[in-house]
Amino acid sequence: MPDRGYDVRMTGFSSRVRVEQAVSWVVDHSRPLPPEDLPLCKLAGRVLASDVISDFDVPGFDRAMMDGFAVQSADTLGASPYNRLRLTLVGTILPGDDLLPQVSSGETVKIMTGTAIPPGADAVLPVEQANFAGGEVFALSEVSPGKHVGRRGEDIARGSMALSAGRRLRPQDLGVLSSIGVSEASVVCRPRVRILVTGNELLPPGSKPSGNRISDANGPMLSALVRRDGGVPIYPGIVADAPDAILAAMQSDVEMILVSGGSSVGQEDYAPTLLTKFGELSIHGIAMRPSSPAGMGRLSERLVFLLPGNPVSCLCAYDFFAGLAIRRLAGRPDRWPYVQTQLTLRRKLVSTVGRLDYARVRIADGEIEPIAISGASILSSTTRADGFVVIPEDSEGYPAGASVTVWLY
Amino acid sequence: MPDRGYDVRMTGFSSRVRVEQAVSWVVDHSRPLPPEDLPLCKLAGRVLASDVISDFDVPGFDRAMMDGFAVQSADTLGASPYNRLRLTLVGTILPGDDLLPQVSSGETVKIMTGTAIPPGADAVLPVEQANFAGGEVFALSEVSPGKHVGRRGEDIARGSMALSAGRRLRPQDLGVLSSIGVSEASVVCRPRVRILVTGNELLPPGSKPSGNRISDANGPMLSALVRRDGGVPIYPGIVADAPDAILAAMQSDVEMILVSGGSSVGQEDYAPTLLTKFGELSIHGIAMRPSSPAGMGRLSERLVFLLPGNPVSCLCAYDFFAGLAIRRLAGRPDRWPYVQTQLTLRRKLVSTVGRLDYARVRIADGEIEPIAISGASILSSTTRADGFVVIPEDSEGYPAGASVTVWLY
Repeated sequence: MPDRGYDVRMTGFSSRVRVEQAVSWVVDHSRPLPPEDLPLCKLAGRVLASDVISDFDVPGFDRAMMDGFAVQSADTLGASPYNRLRLTLVGTILPGDDLLPQVSSGETVKIMTGTAIPPGADAVLPVEQANFAGGEVFALSEVSPGKHVGRRGEDIARGSMALSAGRRLRPQDLGVLSSIGVSEASVVCRPRVRILVTGNELLPPGSKPSGNRISDANGPMLSALVRRDGGVPIYPGIVADAPDAILAAMQSDVEMILVSGGSSVGQEDYAPTLLTKFGELSIHGIAMRPSSPAGMGRLSERLVFLLPGNPVSCLCAYDFFAGLAIRRLAGRPDRWPYVQTQLTLRRKLVSTVGRLDYARVRIADGEIEPIAISGASILSSTTRADGFVVIPEDSEGYPAGASVTVWLY
Repeated sequence: MPDRGYDVRMTGFSSRVRVEQAVSWVVDHSRPLPPEDLPLCKLAGRVLASDVISDFDVPGFDRAMMDGFAVQSADTLGASPYNRLRLTLVGTILPGDDLLPQVSSGETVKIMTGTAIPPGADAVLPVEQANFAGGEVFALSEVSPGKHVGRRGEDIARGSMALSAGRRLRPQDLGVLSSIGVSEASVVCRPRVRILVTGNELLPPGSKPSGNRISDANGPMLSALVRRDGGVPIYPGIVADAPDAILAAMQSDVEMILVSGGSSVGQEDYAPTLLTKFGELSIHGIAMRPSSPAGMGRLSERLVFLLPGNPVSCLCAYDFFAGLAIRRLAGRPDRWPYVQTQLTLRRKLVSTVGRLDYARVRIADGEIEPIAISGASILSSTTRADGFVVIPEDSEGYPAGASVTVWLY
C-alpha cells in the first residue's frame, strides 16, 4: 500500500485558547497603517489619518439667508403694510459677484440667498415683506440689525477643527472638505491582504464541480469580506498543497496573509508548520465551534491568519479574528460591520460549556430559530440564515423564549 | 441700474405637496433596471436579477465529516476499548482523489474530512476511536450506518434554488455561487447618475474659496451618496448658469439627473423651466424643511431631481427622494441605508404642523440633542451630527424626555 506521505497523526489540539485571548492577540498586534494622501474624489469611506483644520472661514463673507433686499435696518423702523417705507433700488447682486454696490441710508440692493451682503447694509428684507415697482422698493415690515444675515465663518471658522483624525469620511464630510478648499487629504492606507487558498481537491472559483473535486468557495467569499472591511484583497488563485508553494505565497509583499485550508494539525497541514519554522505561530486551536482549528501568528511584519477550509469555519474565523485585524489596520472601528438586534428565540439553542458557539439563525415571524443543517461544511447555512447568535464559553445555550442578541448578515 | 435679467419675482411656491406624495411619485416611477452578466469577482453587493438554480449537488459525493477510517459499519459491531476489532488498511484517500479503493468486509481506508467515501464503506470511524499500527487498524467503538458521512447534495441539491432574484449578494453568497459552478451571474444594472451642479458663484471642488465665490460642496457629496446607494455617479464639473448648458447636460446618456442649485422659482432657476418645457415637472415645492424648493420630473426616460443648492437641503432632498430612486433602479430595498435606533431627547425639538422637519441631532451621554446652528446652509451641522430625526407633518415636535427614532449617519 502506497502511503503517499499521509500519516494518520490526526491527534487534535493539545489545548485550545479562549476566543477572548485570540481577540486580545489581534488587538495587540494590529495598529492603523501609515497614511497616504488621496484626492477628494477618492476619500469616501476612508479614515482620516490626521485632523483637518480649516484654513478658511465658511462662508468667507456675510451672506443673505433669504431672497430679498439688502438694507440698513434703521431705514425699516416703523415699516408695516399700513406704513410702507420707500427705498431706492441701487443695484443687484448675483451669486459670485465680487464688486458689490454700496448701500447708503434710504437705499437698497436686490440680493439672493447665499450672496454677499453689500457694504453699508446690515440686514435683509425678505421679498415677502416688500413691494417692488420700477426702481422703488417698499418695506412692509421692520427688520432688526443682522436679520437674515449669515455671518462669515458661522458654518466653519478659520482655524477650527473641521474633521478629526480617525473619522471615517461620510458623503457630507467630502462636502465640508471641499468647501474649506481641501483637494486632498491624508487617510489611513488600506491593508493589502493575500488570500492563500490551498487544497489539491479544489478547482478554481466558479468551475463546474467534477468527480471528487470541488470548486473553491473561500477565495471569492474572503475577497468580498476583505473589501468590506477596508482591505485590498489579492487572490491570484489556488496554491498547491506543497510547502514551497505555500511558503512563497506567504512571503508576498502585503500586510496580511489569510491561509484558507490546511490550518489544522494533520501532516498535510503545512501552513502551521511553516509559520512555526519561519515566523511565529502564536495561537493555534481555539475553543469555539466552528473554527476550532484556526490559528494566527506573524511572518516578518505580516499578520498571518490560518482559517479552516470548511467554508462556515472559514467565515466564522474570518469574522472573529482576521476581519477585526483588517479593520484595525485600516483605522476602522473594531466592531462588527453587522447590524445588531435583539430577538426572541423560537426554539432552544444548545451549546457546550467551555467553547464559544457561532449559531446561524433565521428570522421567522419576528422570532429567530437555529438553521437545522448547520455543520461547518454547509455553506448554504450562512446564506439561508439571516444572521448569527454568539453563545459564550460559559453558557449551555438559551431556552426557547429567551431574548438574544442577533448579528444580521 | 443694469438689471442683468434678474427679476425679483421670488414669490415662492403657490402650493407644496406632502413628502409622502413625492415619495409615492418616486415609487411609481422607478423600477429595477435591466440585468447585466458579471463575473463572480464583480458580484459582491450586487442584486441578483434572476433566481439561481443549482446544476450540481454540493457536495457532489458522499463525504467524510471527520478525519479517520472509512469502514463497513457492520464490522464495528461490538467494538470497544476492551474489545478492539481489527481491520486491514487497504488504502488512503487524499483530497480530490478520483480513484477510490474498494472497502470490503474487514477492510478500511484512511480518509480525511471532506474526502469522498470509498465504495463499500458506509461510515467513518473517527481517528479518536481507533488505534493504528502498521497496516492494521483497531476499532475502539461501534459506528452506525451513515455515521460521520455527509450525504451528496446535503449542502445544496441539484435543481434546488440556491439564491433568489432580488437578493443583494453577501460574501458567503459568492462562495455558494462558486461552489455550484457559477462563474458569472445576471445582476441588476447600476443606474448612471449625472450630477449637474450649477451656480456662477461656485468654484470647482476643493478649490480655495476666493472673494465671494465658494467651493462646490454638493458635487463631491452627491457623488459619494450616489455610489453608496448603488449608482454610478458622473460628475464632470460645474455647469454654467445658462439654459443651453443646463439643457445639454440634462440630456446626458444616463438614467437619472441630479440638478444641484437653481431648483427654486426665481428667474435664475432654469432647471424647473427647462423640465416643464422639454419634459415633465411633476412635483415642485415640497412641504418640508429644509428642501422645500426640491422638485422632480422626467426628461424622456430620465428621472430628474431638482435639489436645492444649500448643502443641507441638498443632502435632505437627496436622501428623501433621489437616493430612494437610485436604490429602486439598482434593485435594492427602499429603506434608508442608515442604522435606526431609539433614543431619548435631552431638549425639546420644535416643528411646525403642515411640514416635515429633518432635524440633525447629536448623541451625548446616550441621549440626543438638536444641533444648535442648523440652517440649511450649515453643512457642518451634518458633520457634527450623529444622525437625524424626522418630525412628521402633523407633529409640533417632541418634548424633552421623549423617545424618538434616530437615523444614524
